[in-house]
Amino acid sequence: MLTYDLEKRGKISLYEYLYQCIRDDILSGKIKAGEKLPSKRALAKNHGISVITVENAYAQLIVEGYVYTQEKKGYFAGKVNRQYIEPEIKTKKRPEEKKKQWLVDFNSNHIMYDSFPFATWSRVMRQTLLDQENSFLTSPAPNGVKELREAIANHLQHFRGMDVNPDNIIVGAGTEYLYSMIVQLLGHNKMIAVEDPGYKKIGKVYESNGVKCVHVKIDKEGLNINDLAGCNVSAIHISPSHHFPTGRVMPIGRRHQLLSWASKNKCYIIEDDYDSEFRFSGKPIPTMAGIDGRSVIYMNTFSKTLAPSIRIAYMILPDQLIETFHKKLGFYSGTVSSFEQYTLANFIKKGYFERHINRMRNYYRDYRNRIIHAIRQSPIYSKVTIEEENAGLHFILGIKGDVDDEKFIKTLKDNNINISGVSDYCYNNLEEFRHKFIINYSAVEEEKLTRALDIMNQALEK
Amino acid sequence: MLTYDLEKRGKISLYEYLYQCIRDDILSGKIKAGEKLPSKRALAKNHGISVITVENAYAQLIVEGYVYTQEKKGYFAGKVNRQYIEPEIKTKKRPEEKKKQWLVDFNSNHIMYDSFPFATWSRVMRQTLLDQENSFLTSPAPNGVKELREAIANHLQHFRGMDVNPDNIIVGAGTEYLYSMIVQLLGHNKMIAVEDPGYKKIGKVYESNGVKCVHVKIDKEGLNINDLAGCNVSAIHISPSHHFPTGRVMPIGRRHQLLSWASKNKCYIIEDDYDSEFRFSGKPIPTMAGIDGRSVIYMNTFSKTLAPSIRIAYMILPDQLIETFHKKLGFYSGTVSSFEQYTLANFIKKGYFERHINRMRNYYRDYRNRIIHAIRQSPIYSKVTIEEENAGLHFILGIKGDVDDEKFIKTLKDNNINISGVSDYCYNNLEEFRHKFIINYSAVEEEKLTRALDIMNQALEK
Repeated sequence: MLTYDLEKRGKISLYEYLYQCIRDDILSGKIKAGEKLPSKRALAKNHGISVITVENAYAQLIVEGYVYTQEKKGYFAGKVNRQYIEPEIKTKKRPEEKKKQWLVDFNSNHIMYDSFPFATWSRVMRQTLLDQENSFLTSPAPNGVKELREAIANHLQHFRGMDVNPDNIIVGAGTEYLYSMIVQLLGHNKMIAVEDPGYKKIGKVYESNGVKCVHVKIDKEGLNINDLAGCNVSAIHISPSHHFPTGRVMPIGRRHQLLSWASKNKCYIIEDDYDSEFRFSGKPIPTMAGIDGRSVIYMNTFSKTLAPSIRIAYMILPDQLIETFHKKLGFYSGTVSSFEQYTLANFIKKGYFERHINRMRNYYRDYRNRIIHAIRQSPIYSKVTIEEENAGLHFILGIKGDVDDEKFIKTLKDNNINISGVSDYCYNNLEEFRHKFIINYSAVEEEKLTRALDIMNQALEK
Repeated sequence: MLTYDLEKRGKISLYEYLYQCIRDDILSGKIKAGEKLPSKRALAKNHGISVITVENAYAQLIVEGYVYTQEKKGYFAGKVNRQYIEPEIKTKKRPEEKKKQWLVDFNSNHIMYDSFPFATWSRVMRQTLLDQENSFLTSPAPNGVKELREAIANHLQHFRGMDVNPDNIIVGAGTEYLYSMIVQLLGHNKMIAVEDPGYKKIGKVYESNGVKCVHVKIDKEGLNINDLAGCNVSAIHISPSHHFPTGRVMPIGRRHQLLSWASKNKCYIIEDDYDSEFRFSGKPIPTMAGIDGRSVIYMNTFSKTLAPSIRIAYMILPDQLIETFHKKLGFYSGTVSSFEQYTLANFIKKGYFERHINRMRNYYRDYRNRIIHAIRQSPIYSKVTIEEENAGLHFILGIKGDVDDEKFIKTLKDNNINISGVSDYCYNNLEEFRHKFIINYSAVEEEKLTRALDIMNQALEK
């Protein structure tokens, strides 16, 4: 008869302890597969416990498959196939990555602490919580909540002069997620052209999702159709309104050329409009999607304009792809919580988003002007050029004369200044992008900048 | 000299109207490529407007590439390559899908309106907003916010007896997103085994991400290794604790067999623990990941336990895959907003999550008992069997004797009752799963159920 010392059970319940004892004996082989177990009544009597306790332990053992019953015969130990199990190797804790404290970090596009409209956002959130209680109860549609898609279409109408059907908008948890959707729409084992230099992550996401990327060199006007000949690409991913990192704007002639090429070659243009909101003079540049919505997939994100923690991006698909989306990918659940979608929809509808963007645009314009002013005042100014397009959260600092880019970057790093060259964003070795460095200014503290510029100036004098 | 009737400009500004006029003339070819434009001064004088207005219009035209300048020569119309543009076809609005109002919908797993703890959640949200203001300012890490991963590990320790390293947890916007991550980890053009019958969406997501699925028939104990022979799969996706839709629990012997097979064949087991929280008697079934964390990818979601609108799921990767994740996919941004991650972390830490689950478990147990009681009281009871495993938000209604499943479902649909057969979840034609129907009871209104059961009974009598 099985006998266990129930006093040893510590804080766990009788039934659970009994379950554990029998389970362990079956696992260790002490109770062999096929061996008959005592009846509930007998086991209960043997331990001076209630039959119901044994019943509960047996029930759990049966559910988990340690024990099976045979009608009118009783309980038997099951076969557990235990032989192979090796001792578990204890997992190592990953060392925590310490964030380096830079004097100045030209690689960071961390936004300013007080730039996010907390008070307004949380007010809209609370109101949304009251109005849209039941938004919690339904799974968000694969293309996003209707109210948000309408708010986005409306915003694009006013802000970008675009005539967008809300039904063509797909909302997703970040642009990277949407890139993977595009791959699923176009099909795997295809080719997508990306810009060289360009934001490397884009190519990485595409490749990680199973497509090949062709890195096409850009010229002064952006990606050139001559370099696409024979490439057989299914899509071309570009940022025509503000190329990263060069900041170049694609002129209307080149845009028309590309649209024409795309339409002839049955290829889509993915128009990544990542920071179009931050043009500091004149109007925002009209989008390519606005010229020809049939071959352009337009993309934008709220992570740049609102806060990086907000993972809401959207794309506008041409009619044909929208059909494909509903047919091929309509089974997906949405990736952004409905509650956040309603909150953002209200934030846009009530005009807070536009107000926020205007405020941020002014803020960044002033801030950029002050940073550029500081460079002009610094002794380094005679050795550099500033290339900027009155737009975006970064500009290019060119070094006149010869400098070893890698050594320059290393020297600055040793002096707690973090900076990247445009060549770091080149896939091929492109001579013309040497001696150019990227100034992401949004996280730069002005008072530290002067010191950093002095260090940079000294590094150039060596 | 260019002359435009500026009175016609309506509400838009002078500079913008002038910009539009010149742009349209260049686009239409009225102003030819290479043609010299009037000087700013001359054009201003001609229209009786300020030079600054013309300057702004010219600046915008230059940025967009309609106009270029030649030093000391002036302004010229650019080449716009306009010829190809065809008139845009107006997009059709997609017809809105009307949701059918069912008498009883056995396919819906919509949760009960009052089951989501709004008040508590919104209190935690507000507190998180106060404490974690700066959580808005950083992009969430690719594997999720540390506080949330720690809270999950802690919860799994207490609730499932699992010893999980928070560093092995990956948080993502829903399980479907995490499936696509698994594909990227394992590589494309691989094979994954899924259960037949099974939740069809799982296979769809995998296939949409470029892997092939082998649909492996389950027996009484679940997926059988004999059916995997020669399959060369990289992973096996199963729900051992509560198979969908049959509800079957994989016994310990089969679990060990599968783990052993996986380890020998260098294959991963994806343990989809989608509703393990809802076992109505005894303890939750121990996980396979808890037995051998080296070959199991454990997955779970908060969409089932909290609310479908909350798009937060997680997986626990074995050490080896965690290394691969950071190496291959570490460049990704997280997909769940940091703010929601902190909110959920606090919700778990403060014990609200466990309390909520306990409440829901009791609620569902009672509700399921009442539904089963109603079936037992109905005249249909003599014609059916109820297969349930004391777990989950659905059970199986088997029809004794012969019935044409498709016709039965159609008759019910015509009578406003929505129901699916287990065979609807079969990939192959599996005889043994005929005459079995899935009762998702969570959205069934009791008072309507009696009527629905009468209709079902009549349908069986025909």
